[in-house]
Amino acid sequence: MATIRDVAKEAGLSTGTVSKALSTPEKVSAKNRLKVEAAIKKLKYKPNLLARRFRSSRANTIVVMVPDIANLFFAKLISGIENVAQQAGFNVLLGDTKDTFEREEAFVRMVETRLADGLINLRPSRSCEPLLAREGVLSVTASSCENTPGVSVRIDNAAAAEKAVSYLVKLGHRRIGLVTGLKDNPHTADRQKGYCQALQAAGIEFDPALVIEGDFNFWSGISAAEQFSQLADRPTAVFCMSDEMAIAAIKGFADRGLKVPEDVSVIGFDDMEVARYVTPTLTTIAQPAEKIGERAASLLIEQINGHTPAIREHVLPYEFIIRDSVGPVNRM
Amino acid sequence: MATIRDVAKEAGLSTGTVSKALSTPEKVSAKNRLKVEAAIKKLKYKPNLLARRFRSSRANTIVVMVPDIANLFFAKLISGIENVAQQAGFNVLLGDTKDTFEREEAFVRMVETRLADGLINLRPSRSCEPLLAREGVLSVTASSCENTPGVSVRIDNAAAAEKAVSYLVKLGHRRIGLVTGLKDNPHTADRQKGYCQALQAAGIEFDPALVIEGDFNFWSGISAAEQFSQLADRPTAVFCMSDEMAIAAIKGFADRGLKVPEDVSVIGFDDMEVARYVTPTLTTIAQPAEKIGERAASLLIEQINGHTPAIREHVLPYEFIIRDSVGPVNRM
Repeated sequence: MATIRDVAKEAGLSTGTVSKALSTPEKVSAKNRLKVEAAIKKLKYKPNLLARRFRSSRANTIVVMVPDIANLFFAKLISGIENVAQQAGFNVLLGDTKDTFEREEAFVRMVETRLADGLINLRPSRSCEPLLAREGVLSVTASSCENTPGVSVRIDNAAAAEKAVSYLVKLGHRRIGLVTGLKDNPHTADRQKGYCQALQAAGIEFDPALVIEGDFNFWSGISAAEQFSQLADRPTAVFCMSDEMAIAAIKGFADRGLKVPEDVSVIGFDDMEVARYVTPTLTTIAQPAEKIGERAASLLIEQINGHTPAIREHVLPYEFIIRDSVGPVNRM
Repeated sequence: MATIRDVAKEAGLSTGTVSKALSTPEKVSAKNRLKVEAAIKKLKYKPNLLARRFRSSRANTIVVMVPDIANLFFAKLISGIENVAQQAGFNVLLGDTKDTFEREEAFVRMVETRLADGLINLRPSRSCEPLLAREGVLSVTASSCENTPGVSVRIDNAAAAEKAVSYLVKLGHRRIGLVTGLKDNPHTADRQKGYCQALQAAGIEFDPALVIEGDFNFWSGISAAEQFSQLADRPTAVFCMSDEMAIAAIKGFADRGLKVPEDVSVIGFDDMEVARYVTPTLTTIAQPAEKIGERAASLLIEQINGHTPAIREHVLPYEFIIRDSVGPVNRM
């Protein structure tokens, strides 16, 4: 490949002039600019942008810390980040943290060492907070929770969960099971708060036997359905904190001879695309994943450009989507 | 944040010596190295790695061109790429191409301009071939097809499709529908070839009325099921080129009063995790998505390190997974 020296030779100019024509063309005469352009074209020269970015001391890159890339909710969110980042001329560097602190720290260090200009964190965590609070680290937490420090974008998880559970109450359900995410995940706390609020508003006592810890993934939904099926006084409805767990719970109940929604109603969370294609179609909370990603990217780029966002906590609207997996209580 | 000048001042040395201590410590006296280390520690100085990478003229970054990040198959593949890249000290830069040539070209240019060391392309396309063939662009195509130029990793799509359709033939099906991907997608061609081979081996004539073009996404599966349901001589089994289309087709048939597998058998392709949780569970071809990603990353890093892979075309094993969505033909 041609080097800057080849271009200079071809153009009959010094490498300094060629370099200046590339970085600050306004400081070079029109005549010399034309010579440089012709030489570049003839030699098919590609300037080394890594070098140029170093000079401008901006990497034009944002890091996205993803707990699990093979999770469709995060994939949609990243798609939104990409939309905005590309338009603003930023590359998106993907950091799959596999939920480990070491990896989180490695990505934060990329920003500290200027390999990236800022960072979007897709899952708030206590371990991450001190990392993101480090001086010189610009960041936004997307899909955040209540009390997430820094700039953040989220839905109101507690209100969404309360809405779903209140809907079950309205249909006559009083034994309402809950399948949570991992208990140290802050979304779990917000959504469980909403579940409790709905019960309290209806005068239903909280029963810890009806709360099963899952991990947001399919498998734990199957397992929860098995456990619920074995209860003497089993729930007539179950609220799952993810669609994956809800879809698997429907299968788990079917394996035990329980039909959804006739014997037990099931609600999910996320509105994955598949939710409208399973049988029965899934009642769920729709999070605007792509919009959350777009907003997070805008807020980060705003900071990189030297502005402080006027609003630090952005709460976007969710939607409660009623489909076929929920019915009125069937009193036995 | 502390700069290299602050470190020099603190250490009582010139910035040149500090810089040398960072980049080529063997050229600096032990005494001065210790002074620099102490100053760095005291000031919590983070060297600018972007600058250092520029000097080593390696970006330690690989670009992954993704046609659609919100596609679970690609997400799993990227997870495999991440595993290998991180261990080898490379960052993964994600490039969502949205299937446009302009974006593909922009990512290839990142390699040409040394912002990245090489590139993994997740979908072979005619438009992309000349880009990847450019001088100085190291690349691997993952999830490739027959006759993909360059270094590639794939399964044998034609053999996998032939296996699925032959299984339907063995169960007595002779009216076998096909829902393809977009017709200019090279996977569509490979899989359709396998479909035709299975029919031919069984002496069944190819009927173009039984082939419906889809786009790999859910919606086109619903639409195909509707069209098949309206045929006077409708198929008794359908092979879909993706799980999404297969899951949606099951729903589409149910909406028309046709039960799977009693009235019509359905086979998918990919083995998405949800395939084992839908009702009926889905018979499908499992692609080792994560392994394909890992192999692709290894092959690219091998090239970046100056080696030429001994084998250019890597064909990994697929698995045919039999679940509940297929049954023997039900002759009416």
